[in-house]
Amino acid sequence: MNAVAHSKTSSLRVNGKRLWDNLMDLAAIGATQKGGVCRLALTALDRQGRDFFVSQARAAGCTIRVDSIGNIFARREGRNPALPVVMTGSHIDTQPTGGKFDGNYGVLAGLEVFKTLNDAGIVTEAPLEVVVWTNEEGSRFVPVMMGSGTFIGEFKIDEVLAQKDRDGVTVGSALTEIGYAGNDQVSTQGIAAYFEAHIEQGPVLEANDKTIGVVTGALGQRWFDVVVTGSEAHAGPTPMPLRKDALLAASHMVQLVNRLALDHAPNARGTVGMLDVYPNSRNVIPGTVKFSIDLRADNDETLTAMVAALHADAAVIAKNGQVSIDMHQVVYFPPAIFAKPLVDAVRDSATEMGMSAMDAVSGAGHDAVYMARVAPTAMIFIPCKDGISHNEIEDARPDHIEAGCNVL
Amino acid sequence: MNAVAHSKTSSLRVNGKRLWDNLMDLAAIGATQKGGVCRLALTALDRQGRDFFVSQARAAGCTIRVDSIGNIFARREGRNPALPVVMTGSHIDTQPTGGKFDGNYGVLAGLEVFKTLNDAGIVTEAPLEVVVWTNEEGSRFVPVMMGSGTFIGEFKIDEVLAQKDRDGVTVGSALTEIGYAGNDQVSTQGIAAYFEAHIEQGPVLEANDKTIGVVTGALGQRWFDVVVTGSEAHAGPTPMPLRKDALLAASHMVQLVNRLALDHAPNARGTVGMLDVYPNSRNVIPGTVKFSIDLRADNDETLTAMVAALHADAAVIAKNGQVSIDMHQVVYFPPAIFAKPLVDAVRDSATEMGMSAMDAVSGAGHDAVYMARVAPTAMIFIPCKDGISHNEIEDARPDHIEAGCNVL
Repeated sequence: MNAVAHSKTSSLRVNGKRLWDNLMDLAAIGATQKGGVCRLALTALDRQGRDFFVSQARAAGCTIRVDSIGNIFARREGRNPALPVVMTGSHIDTQPTGGKFDGNYGVLAGLEVFKTLNDAGIVTEAPLEVVVWTNEEGSRFVPVMMGSGTFIGEFKIDEVLAQKDRDGVTVGSALTEIGYAGNDQVSTQGIAAYFEAHIEQGPVLEANDKTIGVVTGALGQRWFDVVVTGSEAHAGPTPMPLRKDALLAASHMVQLVNRLALDHAPNARGTVGMLDVYPNSRNVIPGTVKFSIDLRADNDETLTAMVAALHADAAVIAKNGQVSIDMHQVVYFPPAIFAKPLVDAVRDSATEMGMSAMDAVSGAGHDAVYMARVAPTAMIFIPCKDGISHNEIEDARPDHIEAGCNVL
Repeated sequence: MNAVAHSKTSSLRVNGKRLWDNLMDLAAIGATQKGGVCRLALTALDRQGRDFFVSQARAAGCTIRVDSIGNIFARREGRNPALPVVMTGSHIDTQPTGGKFDGNYGVLAGLEVFKTLNDAGIVTEAPLEVVVWTNEEGSRFVPVMMGSGTFIGEFKIDEVLAQKDRDGVTVGSALTEIGYAGNDQVSTQGIAAYFEAHIEQGPVLEANDKTIGVVTGALGQRWFDVVVTGSEAHAGPTPMPLRKDALLAASHMVQLVNRLALDHAPNARGTVGMLDVYPNSRNVIPGTVKFSIDLRADNDETLTAMVAALHADAAVIAKNGQVSIDMHQVVYFPPAIFAKPLVDAVRDSATEMGMSAMDAVSGAGHDAVYMARVAPTAMIFIPCKDGISHNEIEDARPDHIEAGCNVL
């Protein structure tokens, strides 16, 4: 954007009420009784959400392209269509008990920017696009961030289209069913910048009383599947020293995972989110426990050190508990570092408008993390109430919603 | 039994092969692919097992009574029918992945004693009965030890008959369906003695290379349902210090339960057998964990001290973990002390026959534990392979099977 355009747009402000109302309208599609949204990827509700977006984008003068994984690109043409595009976007699929803002905010904030430019009669030099990425959540179909991952070449389109949900429905047939199996070729070349506005999904901004999180990058992730194998036995007659209790050993692993994160404060995370006990009977010593480990850190050296300690300490736990512990890595996302000029632009913009801002690292995966591999990328965080997301009570303040959109 | 009868019977030996073959025949009813048995209480398979028992008992000259909870009493009349009866028995229902010996052994060992007496042409002074107790395992219907508990008045018959399985089928209708809803009135009065032969279901006899466990009593039990409530949050964006991780707190509880038992070695037990995590998703910090606690000890003072420490230490864990921990006692069995003259008789009998024996405390609940409240009671344990029970690979040696039956 040149200096003239900047002076022209820097005084512009979005219509916060229009954006908020739009968010509430979209949230009505798949609304849950507890105030959340259940709009799983590639369902009939997802189609309704997509249609809602497309109709507004068309009304705002956009042309629509849909690629073979169902990503929707709404283009607002620039004065010079040959210039690299400036993109923004996010996703509108939700978790089964998801909220109104996760993903949806980034998409509708992009639309609101278009409407605001229209209202002011501004034509930008470069073309602008708002993207709706398919299946970011991964609740119905794995992998997560399917649309952006396929777009940047991380996943092969044929393999992704063949992925099935629990009922055996493939991504390909679900896309066709909802009418979003497109065939537009959209290139990863020539993207000048990708911005994504998102609720923080964590409590840091709120705890620090800041309006804007200037996201400098995203934590790298290593996920493991773990199986602890002991020996199932009757809880009454088996004396304590003769036990091979898989759950007792797993309890030490849960604490180990927590300790690994604390040892690399403040930007490391360690979580056991899923844990299943077998046979899971009151009076039977558990013979097998299966659980997940999710380790995150802002640089690969730390992540590698955490994994090394995990393996070393697990061996001690296995020996002491007379059990075996098998760990298998199932996910690796390298840490992402966002483009400094774009990150600076976000910070400067917030400051110019008098908003309180702080640098932040994204703990969660976002479509922006994949986009950072093919284009200069940055993210804008706004606070969410109590840091809660992936939950029907997920909430955000209208003034923060508006502020984040103004930065965008 | 008078001295004459004793001299006459003390040289008798059961037919070990006949008993073993009989056990294998019963195990064929509900046999599982892995060599175990799945014959849940009051199913069609349970009916087949009961019919198998009744037909053999009738062939051995017994009269059959069935009470209103479906307990089967097979009576071998004595020279003096007015004398108090000497009873033995156990159960033939199994766990879903149960073994061939748990319960079944005690029932068929009783039958084998009858057959052996028949072969020798012996009529005992007092009548003898073998009892098959309904639903000892509690896998399909709670409470466990339903038949013996109802017999001794611990449970009210109307309440028990109204208990439902997961499909909503009541005990009463299931009993009628399999044809074992009896109406014989069997009194708890006038029972001279109750013996129960059983596999140990633990590893102690095997570890000590003993053939007979002279059971002096049974551990008391206190079971709890526990709910840990923290706060569900996204695993990535939530820094470690701001978490309220219900599973992390639960992992400390699992270790506490283990420690409580170790603090009261050797006869205390502490087990978390069942544990469920909510929402149980890889990248969500668990908001709620529900689990069971099973505490056992050989005297009430120890059990009380364990419970006091449980509550005190749980309060500390809750505070440190910023979670709430709610505990609710769901089962209390007082410790049982068996009748000394009967216990001595078991020990003497084993010694006379040259078997290795050791005193033991039953860690598990058995029908004998209820019977001890209404009649002089003792139990005879035999080793099971690797101490494993409630498992399809549950196994016992034919010579031990025979030895235990000879003691009986």
